[in-house]
Amino acid sequence: MASLKKIITNINSKNGRQFDIFIQVLIILSLIAFSIETLPDISDSLADFLYWFEVFCVIIFTVEYILRFYYAKKKLSYVLSFYGIIDILAILPFYISLGVDLRSIRVFRIFRVFRILKLARYNKALDRFKFAAQDAKEEVVLFMIITGILLYLSAIGIYYFEHEAQPEKFASVFHSLWWSISTLTTVGYGDVYPITTGGKIFTFFILIIGLGIITVPAGLVASALSNNAKLKKEDKNKLEYEATKE
Amino acid sequence: MASLKKIITNINSKNGRQFDIFIQVLIILSLIAFSIETLPDISDSLADFLYWFEVFCVIIFTVEYILRFYYAKKKLSYVLSFYGIIDILAILPFYISLGVDLRSIRVFRIFRVFRILKLARYNKALDRFKFAAQDAKEEVVLFMIITGILLYLSAIGIYYFEHEAQPEKFASVFHSLWWSISTLTTVGYGDVYPITTGGKIFTFFILIIGLGIITVPAGLVASALSNNAKLKKEDKNKLEYEATKE
Amino acid sequence: MASLKKIITNINSKNGRQFDIFIQVLIILSLIAFSIETLPDISDSLADFLYWFEVFCVIIFTVEYILRFYYAKKKLSYVLSFYGIIDILAILPFYISLGVDLRSIRVFRIFRVFRILKLARYNKALDRFKFAAQDAKEEVVLFMIITGILLYLSAIGIYYFEHEAQPEKFASVFHSLWWSISTLTTVGYGDVYPITTGGKIFTFFILIIGLGIITVPAGLVASALSNNAKLKKEDKNKLEYEATKE
Amino acid sequence: MASLKKIITNINSKNGRQFDIFIQVLIILSLIAFSIETLPDISDSLADFLYWFEVFCVIIFTVEYILRFYYAKKKLSYVLSFYGIIDILAILPFYISLGVDLRSIRVFRIFRVFRILKLARYNKALDRFKFAAQDAKEEVVLFMIITGILLYLSAIGIYYFEHEAQPEKFASVFHSLWWSISTLTTVGYGDVYPITTGGKIFTFFILIIGLGIITVPAGLVASALSNNAKLKKEDKNKLEYEATKE
Repeated sequence: MASLKKIITNINSKNGRQFDIFIQVLIILSLIAFSIETLPDISDSLADFLYWFEVFCVIIFTVEYILRFYYAKKKLSYVLSFYGIIDILAILPFYISLGVDLRSIRVFRIFRVFRILKLARYNKALDRFKFAAQDAKEEVVLFMIITGILLYLSAIGIYYFEHEAQPEKFASVFHSLWWSISTLTTVGYGDVYPITTGGKIFTFFILIIGLGIITVPAGLVASALSNNAKLKKEDKNKLEYEATKE
Repeated sequence: MASLKKIITNINSKNGRQFDIFIQVLIILSLIAFSIETLPDISDSLADFLYWFEVFCVIIFTVEYILRFYYAKKKLSYVLSFYGIIDILAILPFYISLGVDLRSIRVFRIFRVFRILKLARYNKALDRFKFAAQDAKEEVVLFMIITGILLYLSAIGIYYFEHEAQPEKFASVFHSLWWSISTLTTVGYGDVYPITTGGKIFTFFILIIGLGIITVPAGLVASALSNNAKLKKEDKNKLEYEATKE
Repeated sequence: MASLKKIITNINSKNGRQFDIFIQVLIILSLIAFSIETLPDISDSLADFLYWFEVFCVIIFTVEYILRFYYAKKKLSYVLSFYGIIDILAILPFYISLGVDLRSIRVFRIFRVFRILKLARYNKALDRFKFAAQDAKEEVVLFMIITGILLYLSAIGIYYFEHEAQPEKFASVFHSLWWSISTLTTVGYGDVYPITTGGKIFTFFILIIGLGIITVPAGLVASALSNNAKLKKEDKNKLEYEATKE
Repeated sequence: MASLKKIITNINSKNGRQFDIFIQVLIILSLIAFSIETLPDISDSLADFLYWFEVFCVIIFTVEYILRFYYAKKKLSYVLSFYGIIDILAILPFYISLGVDLRSIRVFRIFRVFRILKLARYNKALDRFKFAAQDAKEEVVLFMIITGILLYLSAIGIYYFEHEAQPEKFASVFHSLWWSISTLTTVGYGDVYPITTGGKIFTFFILIIGLGIITVPAGLVASALSNNAKLKKEDKNKLEYEATKE
């Protein structure tokens, strides 16, 4: 059936687009259903409905997976591709749960979450983000390393200042890392904070230095993205300009 | 009366400008009056004054609405326009409150807030922001989607790590979303935070990845705005340069 | 005495520079002394030292003020200028405190803080910041207005959601504004936060929208500054290029 | 032995690169080992293993230091260079600890942390960051000063507003500085926050002004970095373009 092949593999055809949107909506609905299931006090009828909706989703996703496998040119490379693995992980937990104890499979269900990544599959707009990410890649990686070093240094520093005053909250360098991340990202939950004068002065300087470092990657990505968008615009203008010249 | 029509519809005429400023000041004053009314212990005389000021504002706004309706070329399209609806919502709650119980109308009063949006109506400077928003639109929408996915994935992740340790605070995926938003926006109220080692390590990585994503849209808007301002400046310089050449 | 006049009024001469640096260091030292005085348990000898250091500073600043006044071309315009007022406010509280009760003058002492603004007087580098501020002025003002509207709207919104559940913390729209500022700036002290489901969902959307707005002005200033620095660099290169051509 | 000299001093040779990577991995491993040692309840066998790993690291680092010293052209300038001092500080604490009391040397161990700075030694990618830092240097320094003034002014302001209401938390201007840094960096631990109406209004305005100032340096660095990357790209394109012309 040539038209079915087209629907599955060619997202530019009209039916292919419709099928694509249907699958995307189903992925979102199944994620919402999964989230509702985690609510503590849901009625039996709702739980039943969610169960049958889950069965429905898994059937559709299974049929989709089989068709994708059937129409793939290189079958093995599809199975082992990133999306191939996600596609199978999105449906496998359901089948495994049928045979074994219900409680133990709960851990596997987290893989259902990967369905959300399927959304990314079809989104063309992500390409532009990829280019920007490539442009800013080296700088972002470098800043990640600097951020890592900064987090680690500040964790060791605060450990020496606060360990004696708060032996439970700053029990080790690893415990202090929790303070580092919550402070330097400016989250500041308030569960750990320095109480000694030395620790507070240390935090003061770490924050002044750190704030100028930890938020730089976001600025780099934004710059790269807006440069890409600008170049695209300029190219367009240039083409139009050259077209009017002739 | 041609001059009255001019005052209402033409903001470029002298009287039109004055009327415009008068309405804007009244909107701000009525908003302040509304806020003062919510204060717990206000004297009866102040409450009386605020009531009569409210009556005064509603009368002016009603007259303005009637005149705008009367002078509008396409009456129905004004009534159904965004500002037409806001204009009627800004005065309607007052008239409805006269007939019915006072307590029940309190809910409707929130619509009075929409008066603040009238301020935006007259502000020409917003145009430049609109252009920048158009430039950065696609990227901002994409980042909103990525932010949404990130928030959802981190909510599910933290649910699995913290649900057992803090069954009340992380009761469901939806409860965990509250943690996601307060953590990834770096607000960090301190009402919910991970206590397990796994949850803390998960938060660590989510924050390092998330911080570089969630603040990007602001950078994109800033870039688009400063590019627009730069182009405007360059155009001006070019015009001046060409003028001197002749 | 021509050379004394030069020292006071001409900061480009050698002695003028030295005098300038001396005054700047004294301003910083007097600010540190003022801060130490606020410490709860300081010894009598330290308090005595700080008092005499204060007397010394005030004498120097008084002499400086008199000389500046004496050598000023337009005496009245100096006295009424921004820095003229700050210069007198920096020394006046000391003389007033001699005659009257010690407690009541404490309020006046806050003006000593304005001495720090004298630092700004001499700093040429601030000029470049002024140009960038002018470039980004309109956009920053617009964003300030948008931020103001956003803060106010979110204060009213949270008031309706949380007023009944937390009547003390969200007592009025003005009380809710405290929540607005601490949430939208992502400070999140943790003294006020929504507890109702409606309030949390409202906070969720306000934060997603607000975060992309409230941090834009900083990005605009940074863009304007880096553009200015770039133009300066390009101008320099151009001049050098034209110089080599001849 | 010429080849050994090459390995130590020439990182461009094949063996030099391998040696370099080996030292870098060892530095990271020794830092992890050091962090694990601070954990409160580690088994005796793990403690033993960590001790012998520490001995191994120190021996390698000592041999490396001796060889670097031996092959250095100017021996004294190596010993007194920044990395020369870090290299000796990374191994010295171990030797000192052998003779003296174990507890007292704990303070010295913090110097082991400086090993992490050795990582920076080999990283070429840091060069680009250095250029960007030079470009943005003046502006960043200026903003650091403005940030400092802002922190200090807000500390004095909040001191006058909150000192009477919370005499312990806002005991002096220095105590208030802790509030300043935790508020203006938007960390907001929640250990100190204003409770008076005046203090809250003051915080409101300080945050609106401060937020636009304190995050500017990060934007400046990001701008400088993306400009550098762009120029590099344009230069490359220009060279390619000129190459095709000939």
